[in-house]
Amino acid sequence: MRVLVTGAAGFVGRAVMARLRAEGGSTPIGVDVVDGAGVKVVGDLADAATLAACFAQRVDAVVHLATWPGGIAEREPERAWAVNMDSSRRLVAAAAEAGHRPRLVFASSIAVYGDPLPALIDDATPLSPTLLYGAHKAMMETWLDTQTRRGAINALSLRLPGVVARPRASTALRSAFLSDVFHALAADEPIALPVSPDATTALRSVESIAGNLVHALHCESTGAMNLPATVMRIGDLVDAIARATGASASRVTWDPDPVIEAQFGRVPPMHTPRAVAAGFNADAGLEGLVEAALAGLNFSR
Amino acid sequence: MRVLVTGAAGFVGRAVMARLRAEGGSTPIGVDVVDGAGVKVVGDLADAATLAACFAQRVDAVVHLATWPGGIAEREPERAWAVNMDSSRRLVAAAAEAGHRPRLVFASSIAVYGDPLPALIDDATPLSPTLLYGAHKAMMETWLDTQTRRGAINALSLRLPGVVARPRASTALRSAFLSDVFHALAADEPIALPVSPDATTALRSVESIAGNLVHALHCESTGAMNLPATVMRIGDLVDAIARATGASASRVTWDPDPVIEAQFGRVPPMHTPRAVAAGFNADAGLEGLVEAALAGLNFSR
Repeated sequence: MRVLVTGAAGFVGRAVMARLRAEGGSTPIGVDVVDGAGVKVVGDLADAATLAACFAQRVDAVVHLATWPGGIAEREPERAWAVNMDSSRRLVAAAAEAGHRPRLVFASSIAVYGDPLPALIDDATPLSPTLLYGAHKAMMETWLDTQTRRGAINALSLRLPGVVARPRASTALRSAFLSDVFHALAADEPIALPVSPDATTALRSVESIAGNLVHALHCESTGAMNLPATVMRIGDLVDAIARATGASASRVTWDPDPVIEAQFGRVPPMHTPRAVAAGFNADAGLEGLVEAALAGLNFSR
Repeated sequence: MRVLVTGAAGFVGRAVMARLRAEGGSTPIGVDVVDGAGVKVVGDLADAATLAACFAQRVDAVVHLATWPGGIAEREPERAWAVNMDSSRRLVAAAAEAGHRPRLVFASSIAVYGDPLPALIDDATPLSPTLLYGAHKAMMETWLDTQTRRGAINALSLRLPGVVARPRASTALRSAFLSDVFHALAADEPIALPVSPDATTALRSVESIAGNLVHALHCESTGAMNLPATVMRIGDLVDAIARATGASASRVTWDPDPVIEAQFGRVPPMHTPRAVAAGFNADAGLEGLVEAALAGLNFSR
């Protein structure tokens, strides 16, 4: 099975490429604007030549990760539309032109739920993005679902929660602090968090997300679904990282920013029966999440 | 109140312009790619100069009708994306830049519900477009709602059913036969319809739609809603037009096309309590619809 992975040199992309290589029978074909991590096609999906190179050989499935995420999308809305909407649309058209209805797994985001969030998120919660990025994801879900209904592709959109632990200084993301706290405590360094200890967030380790994205290539679900996630108080997350690393939780100081807290610190409980029934699993609780994220730190640094 | 009307020279646009002119206190500013019908700005919304001309003076509200509709969107998908998505996005950005959160009324479509349609359409029916045009409308609803949530504009999307009676030979629309049957029977001419008499459709007269679009400028609703519509058997529609015109219903022959019947002839009952509560009204039953549509024929020919 030849699997095109967009954004293959990125944080999630590298984990998906590694997972596909480890899995028997899959040939990952990475595409990214930057070289490295075994990327085969270096170029922008906005360029016809890049797309042509991606589909020069048969592509059985696509994992579409390339995106212009939250913070940078707010700063560069035109460029974000070009990447998140136009390039995604061109990728879908190229996949459809292949003519054999390839599987397409799309990394959507819980940013399709805006600020304020409802008291509970489940499979029926209406989408209400506030970030431009969240609106792009919601719209592309509609486009993929339409193209699936038309028989052009066979798509599933998975709404990812926060994925940790990203490399330090991921300035494209307003939620970078959720990864930085792993790096800081692992190195026994101080860190100020822009939320309160009672803020709540939904996280997954990158390893478990890569596993879910690869699982999605093989399952029969279509449409869009939320992935299971570990929802926790950030104070509890800090305590768990401190216990696992031996650092003192007092290395963390709390400096809440109301905007950041509203956008990333009010995640309600999530019920994801559809994803669970389709075989998607979260990390093994808060301890399992912290263990998996810490194990990946050397990978991400 | 200065109201920018896009697609002002079109079928619905001309009716909206006339309604605004008749209403005291409104100054309609029409923009269209073609001149005529009192259009003030002639140009494509894709051109920055056209948008600048539209917003050269204060704009209090926008009625956004310009679109690349169903049939032509299927034949020219790139151009349809450019008009329905890119130009709409640029219009929204220009309206937002005005800085005073203008009202924006968007003509969406019941094409956001695809084929097959559910047994009943109400305010909670999930969107599931099949036509590219329907997907564009659904995505733009999401974008407008996001921009409203962000405080950039104050938008309401109204999902229009079929609007009659359009000028003859509206080849951009696969549903043109629903207008052509009015023209044929009014002229006592034969016509073959690409559906069966038991096919069902949802229609509104253009006069009543223009009234709803202008009402939407003044009401406080946001989000998206279906408009009340007259849902009928097409056989009953033919009988009503024959009675009103004095033509024989036998002028109509039935030549069902399964694709057309699936797309336009399976409209289920529609319950629209949200729109009714907000003051939107359909025509006065099938007889009222036919009477209003026939009265407008000279206007549309």
